[in-house]
Amino acid sequence: MSTGTELTNHQFRLAARPSGLPKPTDWEYRAQPVAGPADGEFLVEISHLSLDPAMRGWMNAGKSYIPPVEIGEVMRAGAIGRVIESRNPRFAVGDHVSGTFGVQEYAVSDGREVRKVDPDVAPLATYLGALGMPGMTAYFGLLDIGRPKAGQTVVVSGAAGAVGSVTGQIAKIHGCRVVGIAGGAEKCRLLTDELGFDAAIDYKAEDVKAALREHAPDGVDVYFDNVGGDILDTVLTRLARGARIVICGAISQYNNTEPVRGPANYMSLLVHRASMTGMVVFDYADRFRAASAEMAGWLADGRLKVREHVVEAGLEAFPDTLLSLFSGDNVGKLVLKIRD
Amino acid sequence: MSTGTELTNHQFRLAARPSGLPKPTDWEYRAQPVAGPADGEFLVEISHLSLDPAMRGWMNAGKSYIPPVEIGEVMRAGAIGRVIESRNPRFAVGDHVSGTFGVQEYAVSDGREVRKVDPDVAPLATYLGALGMPGMTAYFGLLDIGRPKAGQTVVVSGAAGAVGSVTGQIAKIHGCRVVGIAGGAEKCRLLTDELGFDAAIDYKAEDVKAALREHAPDGVDVYFDNVGGDILDTVLTRLARGARIVICGAISQYNNTEPVRGPANYMSLLVHRASMTGMVVFDYADRFRAASAEMAGWLADGRLKVREHVVEAGLEAFPDTLLSLFSGDNVGKLVLKIRD
Repeated sequence: MSTGTELTNHQFRLAARPSGLPKPTDWEYRAQPVAGPADGEFLVEISHLSLDPAMRGWMNAGKSYIPPVEIGEVMRAGAIGRVIESRNPRFAVGDHVSGTFGVQEYAVSDGREVRKVDPDVAPLATYLGALGMPGMTAYFGLLDIGRPKAGQTVVVSGAAGAVGSVTGQIAKIHGCRVVGIAGGAEKCRLLTDELGFDAAIDYKAEDVKAALREHAPDGVDVYFDNVGGDILDTVLTRLARGARIVICGAISQYNNTEPVRGPANYMSLLVHRASMTGMVVFDYADRFRAASAEMAGWLADGRLKVREHVVEAGLEAFPDTLLSLFSGDNVGKLVLKIRD
Repeated sequence: MSTGTELTNHQFRLAARPSGLPKPTDWEYRAQPVAGPADGEFLVEISHLSLDPAMRGWMNAGKSYIPPVEIGEVMRAGAIGRVIESRNPRFAVGDHVSGTFGVQEYAVSDGREVRKVDPDVAPLATYLGALGMPGMTAYFGLLDIGRPKAGQTVVVSGAAGAVGSVTGQIAKIHGCRVVGIAGGAEKCRLLTDELGFDAAIDYKAEDVKAALREHAPDGVDVYFDNVGGDILDTVLTRLARGARIVICGAISQYNNTEPVRGPANYMSLLVHRASMTGMVVFDYADRFRAASAEMAGWLADGRLKVREHVVEAGLEAFPDTLLSLFSGDNVGKLVLKIRD
């Protein structure tokens, strides 16, 4: 049996399915008392919320790789918190934990799909970024689906984002030539000057096709696509023979109110004997531990640099902060820190 | 040195790049004297011309998997003929040969990429179909790219065509459940009643999505796509997890005067962890001999049935006969037989 607590839990629940960008009225902000943990459970005080483009897809009805968030449910989100009460022998008060705790201040968990994280190894926010789902997405999408060989050219879109910035650096570690596509001169400078990309293309200012001709003169061997739309279509025209396209996301299409535009140049797959393959990070869960350990090693020796954009604000800031993912303003992993 | 002959060679040369369906004015019909073979060459009297959807693509300018036919060149075509004069020790007068001899009555060859064919093993037209490029396309596209396992569901579009009809039968031989998509009741009857498909969907009369739900209730494991367009988009909504889409052609798009429409549902690749891969049959040339031998065995034991649509007419019939590929009237491998 669970018991009551003196705590109040603020939450964002899904109030309506958005058309286009989520509006304030698509959310319900609710306060309710925190129930204590039942036997086998523990109570988490959430400190960091992961804000990801994929969340937009979870708000839509219909079949996808994961069930949608239902109307009235707490919005799904990865989060980091601290155990403050426990009736589960595997989790002790004071443990830092990572899990899909939702957009709220407190969560009760039975420990399934929750992992302990160590703030001495990396800052807590990093467990939502390079050592969390974005990092795992980059690692398995690039290495398992993209299968780059040393010396090959890897192009990454959304390259200044949480996934793209890590993808490009892993490709560098594997000896590839890496070209990032991002929006704006500042993001492009970050890629080349701080993260070690060989070249960056500012899609807002440059002709992407011409820039690919310059920076990937032998064609693109691996394209890691986070954005879809025009950029996917353009990269399709510059494939090397046998190219692998990793379909990781399509942020350009997530807030469409019109139907998604398919890649008109898809027959380039035939011309270049290329493939386009979708990936979902959860499929690799049984290898997360090993991948995280390898990534932590790269972090420690400085070969992998992380960029986190930590917004420190109350939970109320969630709706507006989420929107910054889609405006192009965000660089690196976006985290909403609601408590120290 | 080559010598003159008394023969006249009629040819179709490309006069203009078509917009949409090829028009009569896109062709030049020319008569010219036949030059005899030089040392190392032989002269072929062409009897059968292969008419294939891919020819439409070869008429377009621009980079593709094969150089375009240039304006003024004899139109490229696979063909079967008989050696009538030879100065090449590997080819004797009377040999039947298959090669890319072009849309003409006579061709001189040095023997490169020419193979001898045996009319006692199979009718000559079959060497342009099941034992020719369409058969090789079906074999390698399905088995190497599609990689179906026994018990899985294979869907083939353009299923009554030269490639599709063979693809479905190879999938059956490999123990799969096979669903063909074709236009018209007659083609659909052919698939189920004569070629052993488990089900056929008449895309002109049926709701393809609903029919897929019925005939592929567990989803589509392998989709062999010859058509592109709406049908590709619809199959994308019915994929099984880990599905493989083989991009072999896109006949619905070849005569577009508007830009190709990309598959709007391509993000289904992510939802279903699926892949879409292009294939070009020429890449498998070093395995054609073994594949042909296996296919000939299936022909001999009746497990593979071929449908050839042999139009017996003069070379002048070429332009109109080619168009029948795009009107949906053709069933099986289209061959223009210009001589006994």
